[in-house]
Amino acid sequence: MESATQQKESGIFASAWGWLRVFPCSLKAKVTNITKSIKKLGQDDPRRVTHSLKVGLALTLVSLLYYARPLYDSFGVSGMWAVLTVVVVFEFTVGATLSKGLNRGFATLIAGALGVGAQHTAILCGDKGEPIVLGILVFILAAASTFTRFFPRMKARYDYGILIFILTFSMVAVSGYRVDELLVLAHQRLSTILVGGAACTVISIFVCPVWAGEDLHKLIASNLENLACYLEDEYFQVNKSEEGGDVTKKDKSFLQKYKSVLNSKTQEDNLANFARWEPGHGKFRLRHPWQQYLKIGAFARQCAYQIEALNGCIDSRIQVPQEIQSKIQESCENISSESSKALKALASSIKKMTDPSPANSHIEASKKAVKDLENALKEASLNTLDLQAIVPAATVASTLMEIVKCIEKISGSVTDLSNLAHFKEVEHNVSPEGKASHLLHRGSVNPVLDGDSNHVVITIDEETVDSPETEKNQNLKAPNPGKRVPV
Amino acid sequence: MESATQQKESGIFASAWGWLRVFPCSLKAKVTNITKSIKKLGQDDPRRVTHSLKVGLALTLVSLLYYARPLYDSFGVSGMWAVLTVVVVFEFTVGATLSKGLNRGFATLIAGALGVGAQHTAILCGDKGEPIVLGILVFILAAASTFTRFFPRMKARYDYGILIFILTFSMVAVSGYRVDELLVLAHQRLSTILVGGAACTVISIFVCPVWAGEDLHKLIASNLENLACYLEDEYFQVNKSEEGGDVTKKDKSFLQKYKSVLNSKTQEDNLANFARWEPGHGKFRLRHPWQQYLKIGAFARQCAYQIEALNGCIDSRIQVPQEIQSKIQESCENISSESSKALKALASSIKKMTDPSPANSHIEASKKAVKDLENALKEASLNTLDLQAIVPAATVASTLMEIVKCIEKISGSVTDLSNLAHFKEVEHNVSPEGKASHLLHRGSVNPVLDGDSNHVVITIDEETVDSPETEKNQNLKAPNPGKRVPV
Repeated sequence: MESATQQKESGIFASAWGWLRVFPCSLKAKVTNITKSIKKLGQDDPRRVTHSLKVGLALTLVSLLYYARPLYDSFGVSGMWAVLTVVVVFEFTVGATLSKGLNRGFATLIAGALGVGAQHTAILCGDKGEPIVLGILVFILAAASTFTRFFPRMKARYDYGILIFILTFSMVAVSGYRVDELLVLAHQRLSTILVGGAACTVISIFVCPVWAGEDLHKLIASNLENLACYLEDEYFQVNKSEEGGDVTKKDKSFLQKYKSVLNSKTQEDNLANFARWEPGHGKFRLRHPWQQYLKIGAFARQCAYQIEALNGCIDSRIQVPQEIQSKIQESCENISSESSKALKALASSIKKMTDPSPANSHIEASKKAVKDLENALKEASLNTLDLQAIVPAATVASTLMEIVKCIEKISGSVTDLSNLAHFKEVEHNVSPEGKASHLLHRGSVNPVLDGDSNHVVITIDEETVDSPETEKNQNLKAPNPGKRVPV
Repeated sequence: MESATQQKESGIFASAWGWLRVFPCSLKAKVTNITKSIKKLGQDDPRRVTHSLKVGLALTLVSLLYYARPLYDSFGVSGMWAVLTVVVVFEFTVGATLSKGLNRGFATLIAGALGVGAQHTAILCGDKGEPIVLGILVFILAAASTFTRFFPRMKARYDYGILIFILTFSMVAVSGYRVDELLVLAHQRLSTILVGGAACTVISIFVCPVWAGEDLHKLIASNLENLACYLEDEYFQVNKSEEGGDVTKKDKSFLQKYKSVLNSKTQEDNLANFARWEPGHGKFRLRHPWQQYLKIGAFARQCAYQIEALNGCIDSRIQVPQEIQSKIQESCENISSESSKALKALASSIKKMTDPSPANSHIEASKKAVKDLENALKEASLNTLDLQAIVPAATVASTLMEIVKCIEKISGSVTDLSNLAHFKEVEHNVSPEGKASHLLHRGSVNPVLDGDSNHVVITIDEETVDSPETEKNQNLKAPNPGKRVPV
């Protein structure tokens, strides 16, 4: 029995020893994992690192209110509110920071005034009545304001403001019952909030700013590019390699790309909401039509749904008979590649804020390809085939047609955007003689006046003008293509 | 000239008078509009009204800390922190409130301890070194914590906690430089936060609680129902009325229903995150498999994408030749109605937390209908038709097939959920003699032991058992169908 206990003990020791021996390795593995994911997070978007440093900087600056004797003398303990404001208000994008800061500022102001008013009203009701009146007022205002937060529009824009409104009102109304120097307190609080808010605003605007508007702009353009990517080679690479056999590996990488478009609505809405608060920056004016981006985004999502359906068709591996395949393959490929080019042209037009008309030729080409496909389908003789065999091909064809319709809608909304935001006009080089493009690529400039400004900007755009006519002139291109030439 | 001025003046007066005359009307119209939207907001979800009242109640209760002399004496001015906590922590669902409350509590505790530690370390560096060391520490901790907020998992669960961590650490470290009774301050703050948090928790759990878990549960079930709705009559009503002509009006009402599924991801993720914090409630245990709902939600969205594509096909009004129409119409209708029934059965199984197997017969039936459709397509003679004419029909057919595949996946994940969450077994009344169902509907009970509990509950389920066999027995139903009969 003793030996059994000994054995058991030695077993425990052995397992403990084993665990101890493994521990450093597993710890090392965990640390390596965490380090890797931190590194990846930083590399994916280096602005995250700068943002973290900016928050640290803002906090350290604001705590000077405490450390520096003369500042402490004027602000006192309510310098704490400045620290609180910085922590709560400082957000990743300028728009979000401004939105929170302004919401906080105005809500504090209004609620403070109302609170003082409530306090004075309550005093009129005598010593016993005062807390009762104050309690009722706090109850009513808190309940009403909380209900306001359920309105979707209020929620999107003023949620934080309403929260701070309730907070400040209750604090002023309630603490006024005990604190006698209410106005001094309110003044100190407001000024420290101003200091904190100002620190956030200045640092977020002037130190490596992250603009929500710019992010939205890039997001919409990159969404279009992701869709284009799927339609470009990937779709047919799959179709081809499917005959060969090994798709699975490639599958996933491009699946993810367009799938991000499917669920981007919340992100787009948030960015558009923040962008409204931002001042003019870079290429964007103060009242840039951010809402129009949401329309483009909605059509892009519509297109992504169709691509998802198309992806489903391709996944279901029913062989299409060679006879049909050969007849419709070419026009399907044309639709797909022209759609992809159109989307790329639109994305590039958004990115560079130039006239989106270069996409029109691709859209026309894709519509022509749809007509070709329809004709091919009409002419196909079907004597030897059963209907079932052609269902997948028919589905791919009709989905591609739907995609072309979506892209037309996207193009329409991008054109609207270009009108609203006064995108720059571009000299198109689709003239039949190819003369204008010839000249353009030599570096000569044909000035074109755009609507409401007197200076003319011509963009020589590598990606946008890859129509067949220009490809002949590739070797004549100016040494620095893509450079904007102001006249 | 004078008369011109007079005319102008009278013009201004006239327009001012006109504006004044219209003003009461437009004001009335605005007020009516606002009243209507408030009423609608409340009627859509009456819990919004109760939530607002609950917030008011909690705030009024907490302000007692100020009004009541003995409480004020013990808490002092830091009773303010209780008010602040209530305003910031009280959320619509119990899960969100608990998540914020616990995050706030633990973050304050940890950060407070660290802050005191930092304070003591800094004192060792002498009078001049103290603010410098504190500044550096605040900078490092704020930057590191802010960076942590970018990890998606941290963001989802502990975002608020990290915020409060930075807040408290900076406040304790910084204010410790001036305030001597740091520990007293920390103690007071923590206890008032506890009081505020406790008030929120108690009121949100015991006064008309809104459970995030229950909401998620209902959301997923209703999403499935919305999909079922589209597939049920609507799809064929459209197809039929299209021949008649007037669709547009009906279109929108049911379009919206399934479209809500397309963008429900964010909402589902949020609810699942909050549900994790909730204690067991109603039919849900503490560790209910909330993550599994997200899987069902993802497949439902997949299905919604296919329905979106189907909707596109139906919208494009290319006439399908009668010959094809008549051949595939019936099996398409079968697929659609059986899919719809399967989805409804799954939704009802989730809602009532009963075994999802009644859906299986519908799924089998829909798979059979797919086979029928394939056969119909195989047999269709196509001598007289061009390929183009059948493309829409083929697309509808293949999309319906994809939908059946999606529904199989949904069914699989619902079955997983039923295993994980130990859904109750139901006596199926699909026996060929219809005897069991006969007995069941009379009110007799066949007790079936389920896996891990000794009491037996049998649900007489109206919606789940609408298979053809039961419909004959409708008139024999117990007077109170759907009532649970514990044995």
